[in-house]
Amino acid sequence: MTDFKYVINGSVDKFATDPPGVGHVSQINTEIAGWVLLIHALTKILAVGKRIIHNLKNIIQMKVLNGLLMLVAMIGVFACNQPTVKEKTTIEKKPEWVIVIHGGAGNINPERIGPDKEKDYIDKLKEALEAGGRILDNGGSSIDAVEAAINILEDCPLFNAGKGAVFSAGGVNELDASIMDGLTLNAGAVAGVTRIKNPVSAARKVMEASPHVILVREGAEEFAKGQGLEMVDPEYFYTEERWNSLQRIKERERQQKEDDSKKSGTVGAVALDRQGNLAAATSTGGMTNKKWGRVGDSPIIGAGTYADNNTCAVSATGHGEYFIRNVVAYDISARMKYSGESVDQAAGDIINNKLKSINADGGVIALDKNGNIAMPFNTTGMFRGYLVAGQKPVIAIFAKEN
Amino acid sequence: MTDFKYVINGSVDKFATDPPGVGHVSQINTEIAGWVLLIHALTKILAVGKRIIHNLKNIIQMKVLNGLLMLVAMIGVFACNQPTVKEKTTIEKKPEWVIVIHGGAGNINPERIGPDKEKDYIDKLKEALEAGGRILDNGGSSIDAVEAAINILEDCPLFNAGKGAVFSAGGVNELDASIMDGLTLNAGAVAGVTRIKNPVSAARKVMEASPHVILVREGAEEFAKGQGLEMVDPEYFYTEERWNSLQRIKERERQQKEDDSKKSGTVGAVALDRQGNLAAATSTGGMTNKKWGRVGDSPIIGAGTYADNNTCAVSATGHGEYFIRNVVAYDISARMKYSGESVDQAAGDIINNKLKSINADGGVIALDKNGNIAMPFNTTGMFRGYLVAGQKPVIAIFAKEN
Repeated sequence: MTDFKYVINGSVDKFATDPPGVGHVSQINTEIAGWVLLIHALTKILAVGKRIIHNLKNIIQMKVLNGLLMLVAMIGVFACNQPTVKEKTTIEKKPEWVIVIHGGAGNINPERIGPDKEKDYIDKLKEALEAGGRILDNGGSSIDAVEAAINILEDCPLFNAGKGAVFSAGGVNELDASIMDGLTLNAGAVAGVTRIKNPVSAARKVMEASPHVILVREGAEEFAKGQGLEMVDPEYFYTEERWNSLQRIKERERQQKEDDSKKSGTVGAVALDRQGNLAAATSTGGMTNKKWGRVGDSPIIGAGTYADNNTCAVSATGHGEYFIRNVVAYDISARMKYSGESVDQAAGDIINNKLKSINADGGVIALDKNGNIAMPFNTTGMFRGYLVAGQKPVIAIFAKEN
Repeated sequence: MTDFKYVINGSVDKFATDPPGVGHVSQINTEIAGWVLLIHALTKILAVGKRIIHNLKNIIQMKVLNGLLMLVAMIGVFACNQPTVKEKTTIEKKPEWVIVIHGGAGNINPERIGPDKEKDYIDKLKEALEAGGRILDNGGSSIDAVEAAINILEDCPLFNAGKGAVFSAGGVNELDASIMDGLTLNAGAVAGVTRIKNPVSAARKVMEASPHVILVREGAEEFAKGQGLEMVDPEYFYTEERWNSLQRIKERERQQKEDDSKKSGTVGAVALDRQGNLAAATSTGGMTNKKWGRVGDSPIIGAGTYADNNTCAVSATGHGEYFIRNVVAYDISARMKYSGESVDQAAGDIINNKLKSINADGGVIALDKNGNIAMPFNTTGMFRGYLVAGQKPVIAIFAKEN
């Protein structure tokens, strides 16, 4: 008997948009202000109308007129078919807390991974969810939860973050991470660090113990060391598999063949705590064979990570350059805020339409303030899972069509 | 006789929102669909109403009823005070090309600058505008124009970008820059570079000659050198004034006094070319005494720089950390796209309300696809100016209230 739910091929799409237990809240237009104004205006008009019609002999005709006026007014309101600011209102099934994680989107298929490794991935994702979940269940903060979940994935060689990160062209593991607090909009990030064991914890220190948001390279390492974070020899990040990937890509480069390796393995987490606060964080080794101090979207607030209690928390994974240009994480928040889209609509459209149309591979995990989860991706798979208060963890890897 | 217009204290606000020659386009709600539906519904109601009232003897009373129904309907429409998608419609005076530049927002006042230096600033801003304007007038691209304008400001020791950049805590000039093409959404950025003479040109090379968007530190320098850009000894960036600023701030730090120096001098440019393409770019030395490889908003696409032909081009200046957390440049574009705000409304509200309310100093220059210009700032001054096809450059430094 397993103590978690593993969603296999064929059922991913459903749960990705409609997780069990997460109340699917209804959309109600906040038209109350408009109605109040309208009814106020109508009352005045009716008063004037009544005085004029006072001369009419037939009281029945006046009732008809009153009815007509109300009818016209109602049609006037409903005919105003312009975009309205929609807000989530029904929260009867809002969960007490939620955590959602990803371990990267990419060219992932069962044959390539094999059953043993698949189990390893599932176990580790479950461990990360449960670590974050324990914190949330005990009333801890969403920031603590996302950091704890990501620390576990950073320490695991299966994912492209921390131990297990890919190698740059120079044969070094250059790590990026960021974190954001949806309550305060505080944020922190590190980029291009090579000696910090848990980059997401360094990002958190930048957020909390520096006046800055982004620190890079040696400066970021100096800061992290000063903050008492665990520093490691760059060799700590070595894994044979990632080293071999680099050699394979370099060989293809020498043969002037296009690099067909799909990068995957960035990790991320978003969470909603009992206090109603959202947080998001992302950690990565970036692209294998990256050159010239390349920085992707993961440490860029607004691109790879965003959290705002008023809308949602987002962590992205994919071809970072496209995610930067399209300001993906913030765009989900902006669509919810300005267009009244649901987290599902906003995240789904950006990943499956906007980014897919420009061949930008990737996905996001997004969680709104009411606990609604979206996990869209336009690749063959995305390591992902969520845990809702009082329920079992749900984990998935492949897409429906696999 | 001057061949340009210098707007002095007291008239800034007007031209900032209503530049001469830039057609001030009217905002017309796209409520036509709503009206058609409404009028259609009304016609039917009127027909029914007329049949009922047919029994009324007095034709005058029926006219009163008709009038009343129309009045109620109109109030119904106007009482629908929900956000509507607004679109710029009148483009009869859309200029053939426009370029707008800034040289930083901050604690700028006439006494501090003095008349001689004020003239130096004005002359240099004019030179930059005219360099960009020449390119645009000859049918060149907005990308070429913003790069050329910024190169002139980077080469001038008056501004905190390129030569004249502020010093980091380590006594080094660490430069950041970015550029974005509104047609393709391509973008490039460099951060923490110390040897590239013109960082904005390196950002452009990243955009055009690399598969990446952001390159940092030595890697970015190696790339720029490989692209044939002019490299300089780090000493090239030394200026006595900036060095003295660093010493002053360090002294205050030793005395544990708060750093009251307002950072200013970031440079930026946005342009609209004859082909209708927008571009934006920003270049800076960041904050004096910055530590640990701090990167601000200037090289962050979406924070300090953004351009999209569908909305606007933006370059920001100010307290970068706040601009990152609030994704300022992209937020202006998002409000225009999703809420139908004008460039003036979006940029003005973000700078003067949202950022001001959290004590986030700074400003932006923003230019929409129809040539409308916004240059809001919430500090005592912002070096700024614009040049519209067929007109004289307009330059300003101080705010109205100075």
